[in-house]
Formats: sequence, C-alpha cells, structure tokens
Amino acid sequence: MIIVMKMNATETDVQRVADRIIELGLRTHLSQGEERTIIGVIGDNRPVNREMFERMEGVEKVMRVLPPFKLASRDFKPDDTVIPLNGTRIGDRQVVVMAGPCAVEDRVQMREVAHAVKEAGVKILRGGAFKPRTSPYSFQGLGRKGLEILAEVRDEFGLAIVTEVMAPEDVPLVAEYADILQVGARNMQNYALLHALGANGKPVLLKRGMMSTLQELLMSAEYILSHGNYQVMLCERGIRTFEPYTRNTFDINAIPALKGLTHLPVIADPSHGTGKWDLVAAVSKAAVAAGADGLIIEVHPHPSRALSDGAQSLKPETFARLMVELQAVAQAVGREL
Amino acid sequence: MIIVMKMNATETDVQRVADRIIELGLRTHLSQGEERTIIGVIGDNRPVNREMFERMEGVEKVMRVLPPFKLASRDFKPDDTVIPLNGTRIGDRQVVVMAGPCAVEDRVQMREVAHAVKEAGVKILRGGAFKPRTSPYSFQGLGRKGLEILAEVRDEFGLAIVTEVMAPEDVPLVAEYADILQVGARNMQNYALLHALGANGKPVLLKRGMMSTLQELLMSAEYILSHGNYQVMLCERGIRTFEPYTRNTFDINAIPALKGLTHLPVIADPSHGTGKWDLVAAVSKAAVAAGADGLIIEVHPHPSRALSDGAQSLKPETFARLMVELQAVAQAVGREL
Amino acid sequence: MIIVMKMNATETDVQRVADRIIELGLRTHLSQGEERTIIGVIGDNRPVNREMFERMEGVEKVMRVLPPFKLASRDFKPDDTVIPLNGTRIGDRQVVVMAGPCAVEDRVQMREVAHAVKEAGVKILRGGAFKPRTSPYSFQGLGRKGLEILAEVRDEFGLAIVTEVMAPEDVPLVAEYADILQVGARNMQNYALLHALGANGKPVLLKRGMMSTLQELLMSAEYILSHGNYQVMLCERGIRTFEPYTRNTFDINAIPALKGLTHLPVIADPSHGTGKWDLVAAVSKAAVAAGADGLIIEVHPHPSRALSDGAQSLKPETFARLMVELQAVAQAVGREL
Amino acid sequence: MIIVMKMNATETDVQRVADRIIELGLRTHLSQGEERTIIGVIGDNRPVNREMFERMEGVEKVMRVLPPFKLASRDFKPDDTVIPLNGTRIGDRQVVVMAGPCAVEDRVQMREVAHAVKEAGVKILRGGAFKPRTSPYSFQGLGRKGLEILAEVRDEFGLAIVTEVMAPEDVPLVAEYADILQVGARNMQNYALLHALGANGKPVLLKRGMMSTLQELLMSAEYILSHGNYQVMLCERGIRTFEPYTRNTFDINAIPALKGLTHLPVIADPSHGTGKWDLVAAVSKAAVAAGADGLIIEVHPHPSRALSDGAQSLKPETFARLMVELQAVAQAVGREL
Repeated sequence: MIIVMKMNATETDVQRVADRIIELGLRTHLSQGEERTIIGVIGDNRPVNREMFERMEGVEKVMRVLPPFKLASRDFKPDDTVIPLNGTRIGDRQVVVMAGPCAVEDRVQMREVAHAVKEAGVKILRGGAFKPRTSPYSFQGLGRKGLEILAEVRDEFGLAIVTEVMAPEDVPLVAEYADILQVGARNMQNYALLHALGANGKPVLLKRGMMSTLQELLMSAEYILSHGNYQVMLCERGIRTFEPYTRNTFDINAIPALKGLTHLPVIADPSHGTGKWDLVAAVSKAAVAAGADGLIIEVHPHPSRALSDGAQSLKPETFARLMVELQAVAQAVGREL
Repeated sequence: MIIVMKMNATETDVQRVADRIIELGLRTHLSQGEERTIIGVIGDNRPVNREMFERMEGVEKVMRVLPPFKLASRDFKPDDTVIPLNGTRIGDRQVVVMAGPCAVEDRVQMREVAHAVKEAGVKILRGGAFKPRTSPYSFQGLGRKGLEILAEVRDEFGLAIVTEVMAPEDVPLVAEYADILQVGARNMQNYALLHALGANGKPVLLKRGMMSTLQELLMSAEYILSHGNYQVMLCERGIRTFEPYTRNTFDINAIPALKGLTHLPVIADPSHGTGKWDLVAAVSKAAVAAGADGLIIEVHPHPSRALSDGAQSLKPETFARLMVELQAVAQAVGREL
Repeated sequence: MIIVMKMNATETDVQRVADRIIELGLRTHLSQGEERTIIGVIGDNRPVNREMFERMEGVEKVMRVLPPFKLASRDFKPDDTVIPLNGTRIGDRQVVVMAGPCAVEDRVQMREVAHAVKEAGVKILRGGAFKPRTSPYSFQGLGRKGLEILAEVRDEFGLAIVTEVMAPEDVPLVAEYADILQVGARNMQNYALLHALGANGKPVLLKRGMMSTLQELLMSAEYILSHGNYQVMLCERGIRTFEPYTRNTFDINAIPALKGLTHLPVIADPSHGTGKWDLVAAVSKAAVAAGADGLIIEVHPHPSRALSDGAQSLKPETFARLMVELQAVAQAVGREL
Repeated sequence: MIIVMKMNATETDVQRVADRIIELGLRTHLSQGEERTIIGVIGDNRPVNREMFERMEGVEKVMRVLPPFKLASRDFKPDDTVIPLNGTRIGDRQVVVMAGPCAVEDRVQMREVAHAVKEAGVKILRGGAFKPRTSPYSFQGLGRKGLEILAEVRDEFGLAIVTEVMAPEDVPLVAEYADILQVGARNMQNYALLHALGANGKPVLLKRGMMSTLQELLMSAEYILSHGNYQVMLCERGIRTFEPYTRNTFDINAIPALKGLTHLPVIADPSHGTGKWDLVAAVSKAAVAAGADGLIIEVHPHPSRALSDGAQSLKPETFARLMVELQAVAQAVGREL
C-alpha cells in the first residue's frame, strides 16, 4: 500500500499516518518527492482497510500494490487447477463443452436435449431448476421437480449435470443432484451462498456478475477457496455496457487476462455473452481461440417455444455443426475438444 | 408488444407469428408498412416471454409497449405511498434523514453516533450488523451481537432502526430488531430474499443494484409488492460507470424519473453515491433539490478508525452542519426536514 | 510515478528500470517490501510516457502520483477563475443561466426565444448554427446564416451569444459572432480544435465528452490553457451509461468534484444530461444545490416542432417558472441567480 | 416508427399526432390495444425527427422500426464490399493484417519495423504521423515529416500505408502519402472530417468511438458513403467499460454483429482493444475465429522505448510467431492469411 500525501500536508500529518501504520503492526518507508511525500506500507496489509488512511488529515490518495486476492492467484499456485469430472479434466488440454437448455421445462424436453448434445460429443448437461428471473411474472423454474428430472436424465444418458443454486439453504439439496453447482451472475456477491458452497466442497461454476470487475470475480472465488474448496471454475458470461444491440458485451479480454492472473479454469458462456443465437457460433470459436478451457452453451429443441432464453438458444442441429467447427479451432490453438 | 418482421419475411412467417399470438390467448393487429410488416399484440402480454417471438422465422425484433411492472407503477396507484414510522411519514412532505455508521462496531461507537444524530434531528438510525464485503479478509460485521447493540441504542435514544439483511433465513431475526429492513445493492436481484421480505411485511429499503436499470429496480420492488407488502422505499445509491474518480456515479436523474414512474418513496444515499466524504454535502443537497423523499447518510465519530466505509463517512459535527443546510434547501423546494 | 516490480523481478530488472529513470533526468527512490520492490520516481515526470516502464522486464505496474494536468489544477491556481461577460461574472457568486434553442432555425424562432428568455432574466442566449448530428439525414444547422441571425438577435435584445464551433477553420468566423465558443461533447478531444480555441482567446464552454473522465476533461482544458487562454468553462452534460431510460446520466458528483480539482467555472447542462424535458427542472435545481456556477438550458417556443432536441426543450412559460424556483434554491446555498 | 400513446391520452391527442404525420407526407395506421393506443407511421420516415412526436400531448414513447442507416446496410447491398489494395482484397476470403508502430518516430525505427513486418508476410504498414494525445505534454507526432518517412519506407519495401488524419484540412495532404486514411476513435463523430473523407474517395479505416454503439458507427460510415465513397472499413478497437484491468474492452460480439448488419469489411484492433501486449495474441486469434476480415496490430522494435503505446506493442519476433499461429486459426474457419 502506498499513501500519497497532499501537496500541503504538514509534518504532523505525515507523522500521524506513520504512527497509525506502526500501530497496525506494519512498517513504513518514506519517500520525499518534489511535489508530494509518499509513504510506503511494508508488510502484508491485505486485511487493512485502505479507507482508514484516506480519511486522515493530509492524505491525498491510497493505492494498493498487492492484489487483494491470494489463494486464487498464480503467484500463490503457479500450476493450473484441473477438475476431473465424468471422464473429462476441466482446465487441462481438452476444451470442455457443457450444453443444454436454460430451464428444465419437462422430462420430454430434457431427454430430447440430452440425447442431442450427447450425440454431438458433450459430457456435461446444463439445465436450470431454480431460475432467477427479473420479473415475478416470468417462469421461475420447476425447483425440486426439475432436479429430479435432471437426475433421471443423468442416469439414462451418462451425462454429468451443472445447475444453478440460488440460496444457501438449497446447497445440500442441489448438491445431491448436481455434479457442478452454478452461481449465477446476479449472485456472484451473495456471500452467504459463497460460504455455503465453500463448505460443501463440490465443484462450483462461478459466473462473473454483469457489472463485476475481474478482481471482484477473483475475490468471490477467494471466498470459496478460503473454505478449502479449490474446485472452482470462473465463467465469463458478458458484462453490461452501453451497447444495446447485444444483451451483454462478451469480454473476450477476460479469458487471457484471467488465465494469467489465476490458476483456476476459465469457462465462456457465449449464449448470455451475446443474447442472440446467430452470434453464438462466432463467439464460441473466438473464446476457444482466446484460450478458454470450456464453453457453456444453451441448446433447446424448440427455441421459439422455450420458457426462457429462447433468443439465445441453439437448435440441436446448429449446435452439432458448431461442435465440428469448434474441433478445428481447438486444434488450431493446440488443444482438442 | 409490437413484432417487427424482416424485410424479406414471407406471408407464412407472418401467419405463424399470428397463430402463436392467438394460441397464447391474445389478439393480433397487422400493419403493412412500406418496408416492414408490423404485428401488434393486443391484450395483457406481461407474462409472455418476448424471446419466443424473437426466435420465429422472419422476425426482426420485438418491442415492448407496456412497462413490465404493474403494482409499482403510477398508472396502477396514482397517489404517493406514505410509510409512517416513529413519528415521521416517509414519502410525505417531510424529507426524512436516516444516519449512522456503515457497520455496528461496538456499543460505545453506536451510543456516540446515536446521541449525535439525534441531536441533529434524526429519527432513524442506520448501522449494519451483517456486512457484505468484497473481500473475505475484511470485517464481516458483528451479526446477532450487532443487532442487540442496535436494539439497546434504539430503546435508549428512541430512534427507529434501519439495518441490512443478507439472507432469506435471517429475515425473521433481523425483523425482530429492525424497523426497516435494508436490501443491499448486491442483493437487489436476490429473489429468495425479496420473497422473504414480501412475506414478512415490515418496511423495506430496497437499494438499486450498482448495475441495475430503473426498470429492474422497479421489477425487484414488484417482487415484494406482489406478496402484499407495499411498504417499500427505493434507494438510489450510485451506479457503476467508467468514471474512476468517484466510487459510484450518483444518478440524480433517477430521482425525478422514479417519482414519475412509481408511487413508492425515493431515498438517496449520497455516501455510497460518491464514496468521498467531501462530496456528500453537495450531493445530499442536490438530492433534496431534485425531489428525494429522504436521505441515508453515513456518520461515524472517528472515520479514520472506522472498520468500513470511513472514506465516505461524515464526522458528527460536519453532519450537524449539513442538517442545517439541508433545511434551507428543503424549504426552497417546498418541503421541510 | 511509482513503479511496482513483479514478485519474481531480478536485481538486474530493478537496475535497468533505475537506469532508465536516471537517463530521463529524474531520480529514484527504492523501497523493498515483503512481497514486492517499489521504485519511486522523483522529479516532474508529467511528460514521461508511463508505458515505457510498463514494457520493461520485471515491471508489474506503474502508478501515477501527480495529476497529469497542471494549469487547470487548484494546486496551481487556488483562486476561482471568474469570467466577466455582458454584466455577469461567471464563476463568481451569481449562478449564470444560458438558455435558448438547440438549433437556430429562423429569425422568427430566435426572436421569440430571445424575448422570452430575456424576460425571464437571462443574459446569455444559446443557439446552434453548426450542428453535429449522428445521422447525415438530419438537419445540420444553418451555418453562417445561423450566425447572422444570432448576431441580429444579440444586437436587438442585448444578449450575449454562446454557440458551437465544430472545426478549427471555423473558429475565426464563429468568434466574430459569438461571445462564448462552445466545444461540443463529441469534440472534447478534437485537439486541432482545442489548439485553435486556445490561440483565439475568446471564452470557451468546453463540454465533457459523453465517454470522458473528469481527468480527461481537465486535460482537454489544459490544451486550451496551455495557449494562455484561461477563459474556459467546464460543462457537465451527462455521461453514457447502461441506463436506457434517460438519454444520458447526469453526473452530479462531477460538480463538487470539479470545484475541488480546478479553479475553472463549472456549468451544468440538464437538457442533455437528462434528454427529457420533464426531468430538466429537478436536475437544474439539483445542479445549483450542488454548487454549479451556471446552467445551460434548452428552450424552444414550440418543442413539438423543433428541428432538433425537442424532447428535452422547455417551453418559455415552463422555463420562466423554473427561473423563479432556481432563485430560491440558489439563495438556500448562499448564492443568487 | 411506432408512436405509443399514454394510458390517459385523449382522442384529440391521437388526432393531433395523426395530423402531424400526414402533414409530414406520411400515412398513419391506428391500433387500439387494451391499455394503450398505438399509431404506426407508414412511409420512409428516416429523415423525420422522432423527438417532435415525443413532445406532443399524450405521447408516451416513440420507437423506431427501420434502422436509421441505409447505404451501409445489408438490406441495401447484400454482397460483401471488397476493397482491393496492394495485391490484397480486403473483405474477401483472405484475412488482411496491417502492422507497424503507433507513431512514426524516425526513419531508422520505421525501416526496422517495415522490414520485420514484411518478413512476417504483412502487406500494409501502419504508423501515425498526426497523433491525438490526451495530454498536451505528450509527443504529438512528426506531422508532415512523418508522412515523408512513411512514403520513403513504402517505396523501399513495397508496402501500402495506413495512417491517421485528424482534421478536414489535412485530408488532401495525408491522402497524397497514404493508401488508407484512418479515422481515430476520438474522431468517429467529427462530421467535418467524415465529409472531407467522403469527398476524397480514398479507402477509409473508420475506428469505432470508445463509447459509440454499433448503430452510431454505421451512421458515421453512412456519412462517408453518402458522398459516394464506398471504400470504408469498420474497425472494432475496444470500448470503454467499468473494467479497469484492460485499457478497453474488446467487443468481440461486434464482429459477427457488424458482418450481419453491413456489407462493409470489419477490421479488429486487438492492440487498443486490450492495451496490454500479452493479451494481443489471444484476442487476435479470437477476432479471426469470430470472422474479422483483418487485423491492425501495433509492432515496435523496442516497445520499452516507444514514444507512445509501448505497453500494447509487440516486438517483431513475437509478432512473427503470432502470424504463424493466426494462419492456423484462419484455416480452421475456412479462410487464409
């Protein structure tokens, strides 16, 4: 942490800041510039509240030197985290594709999708039983009934299941049925939920909030990791910007950036990242070319009858074609599908 | 709902869309423009999933005509909602000020603040017992112990209490101690929490998410209202933008905009809206001048020792001065403090 | 400037950075933290390209300590800049209101507006002759003819004129007719234009770009100031955010923030800042309460026939009422209109 | 255009709107919904100012049905525009790479880069002679001298030249030396400049403004096209968002979105799109995988001594490796480099 003093800060101001630093068990390092005095704080100051200093007399600003996340950082764990699941190894050489509908609607729909995505080579099926919806008048998901359908389909087709959990008290229930527990974008900073998932220990797919920075995403992962659960995948699913043409702006930069900052696997969600089915193939290929460890793609047998996210869902035949194209791109960047 | 067909849409495309509209129990109205055919959907189509149509052959785009919220709208309830509390009437002529520290730290701190804000004319004390923090290494609040301190201070000073609740299972506990239950910005779309608050029935202060549109804020209020709990206050607390100088960008437009769209009281939070104590007074006065029904302001006896949000907290004496200035602004716009 | 080295930076890396600093005529100050080495750069490094260091081996990041603007800063000139014009003193105790239509349409319209705003107490008339329009199919302004109309109206009514200039080669022409030359939001970083205005010397109203930070706004002002023209007013006119309900998000924080950072007068444009006429009064009052030195408001005798910006223009009678209300708010914050 | 009337609009309100539509030479189509009356406007209403209607009594909102751009649209010209240049065909099967330094610094530097990029297979050299810089204290480019160096290098190495033009009066000069005239992001809505480039007729590389929507980008292209100059390339170079880790957020969605909306070639600028050299390779590959027609990449022989943009410039050897990798990705999506 670096504390920049104001141009007109007095010696007493500087002394008071230095005293406070020492009071907190840290050491100081003064540097007298031509226009400003700068005080370096020596020691692990991650738990120290930066704002304390910002409010002291004569302080202009406080800048952090250390990244605030630790367990999630490459500095802490240089090797890639690999999560083995249903014969795949997420975070390893293979690019893992998860596919399925936004919401579990009924058994017929899920069997149809499961069959189609399995044919296309998928090993992990997605489908929401608990659905966070902006409107109380929209379909809210089948809940426990949806989980049961997912379990049946899992057994029948030999697919692993990824599904969302919305509340801490639902974690044990959802963990019974799911292989990967998904944290939705709106819940990225639902800390009660993150604690519960950390304690539970099952693999977690943590979606980036639509207006969360990469650092905040890593801090939310840190909550889970700090409970000893290292099976965390980060998911870039588009951020909110001023551009109205697409539902979100898929942040392609986030993929190589996260791969550099952290050892955790990075998954891309081009369905939410675009919101438009006809952009999904292009952005899927882009994500793989940029180094994503996996994709999560919405597929629905009848998008124009889907109870949610129809506009961004691929039909099974379009998805099957995309899988072939993705294979070529994966190979071009030294990976396989 | 208006469905715009593509330039090259066929008659069959148009017919299929019309058939689907009728299948949903609604009526159609066709309009043949020079370049596009447009299909109007007649009937209350709020529960209808717009995306269904977006995925049909020949459809270019679908535009909503009706606002998606109903109970929260002025069309539904033209008169202002007024929430009586501890001798004040929130949403009425008086501008209500809630003040106190970000977090409850200990009894001494809370008694000091309570005394100071009461002296300054405040009737509602804020203070967080459960704290959502970006970092797992930051102070997370005192929890139940914090609530007990709040209750003691309430009894001693005759102040009403507003405090945050973060998880649905905590609603009954927090409701025991608090007069107003606050939903934090990160939880604006925590639907399990909104349901629990709707069912509980106590007054709710619903903070706008840092990434949420006004419409989404109103939809979250709609969740609470749809349970029959109409004691909801909306709180503008700044949105996330590209501007790094301030912690958030306080959306002053939101105040008159919300007053036009809804009957619910609108509260302004200039502390989070700026993140800098030296901007709080100016933005507080601006919010009152723009028509806010209330303010919620962070006050701490020793900001440079606060466990959270010190940078944006006012000292008691600065706050007392601000209360006097606010009185003048309130009168200038035909209200009182 | 502070240079933070990577955890694994070698002594040679540190030495190379230090050598480069000395090569640039500056001095270094090393600080050895527990996890990182930090190199302080001593001396005025404003002209130094930060990126040079970012690309050196072993460097993690480079942070600026000094603000990059100098002439525009309060540190450089603590006293408020006051611009005397047509009997008013912009930047002084009086809040100055500029009003008029978006575009000069014809003589009849301008005389009607000029009469109305003068009656309401206005001394500076706005009106665009050169109009930047998103679409080539929209009305582009009357050009020189518009300037002539402005000049006639100025003489008849004794009003000063503020009007936009879009290209450097037009500066002499527009300066002949106008008392204040306006730089539009889209041109805030049109450096050729800023140079021309700096050289010309007439008062400039510099609008913040819709995508520009406060620091970038101050850097654009610095371009003009560095030519010796200190008659610059900064104008907050709303920034682009994700919120679709309003045309822009008026950044009320910018007003007290700029007043703290710079000595230049700060003007608010609630017409563009909201894009909706029915929000203009509330945001105008807010801007004055927050400390704005002036307002620029769009007024049109027949908004529903205006060739541009009708949706955000006030009718003369609404504007006259607003002027009365603004008087009360100005007094409440110790100023006058 | 669709005009939605308010719930409480009177018959007179509706009639007045209808009369105005007819007065403008268009036709109306009324649709009576259960809660709102809707008025369709029939006829080409692109030149009609939407705001006129927004200000009429009883109008709730006005929604555009037709996209506001015409010449740039795929509806108008379904086939891809191809721009032949120096043996390449931009917009055709080949992915075209333009490379070189941000700024022309001197002859030695340019010859070094030109040699390197030509070796790597590049046919178009970039380099700025006129540089728009945020700070008046930064290097502003060599101007005419820079153009002369570019011309010499062009002749020596047989490369085509792309370079920025910042002011309308410089268009003839720059056009003398350059094969492609670049409009920088800050000038995307500098309409005087767009007019001059439309009239000039040489190929234009139009960069998206950092906070411009795709529609605004297409409207700026429309300005150039409307002068009869169809040799326009659109360039996605990252947009401004809340994410501070990268300089900009590269909008990968924009590539397939633009390819669908327009016939113009789409170029990607991963250097500005990320601002960090170590993300450039990943995002370059992503852009090609997503369907970009070309790339423009910053290459500098000594990035840590570059006068601008060093942090995002590749060294020649890194660039050469990237060219090989790009070849594989291009082939995977059915194209070549």
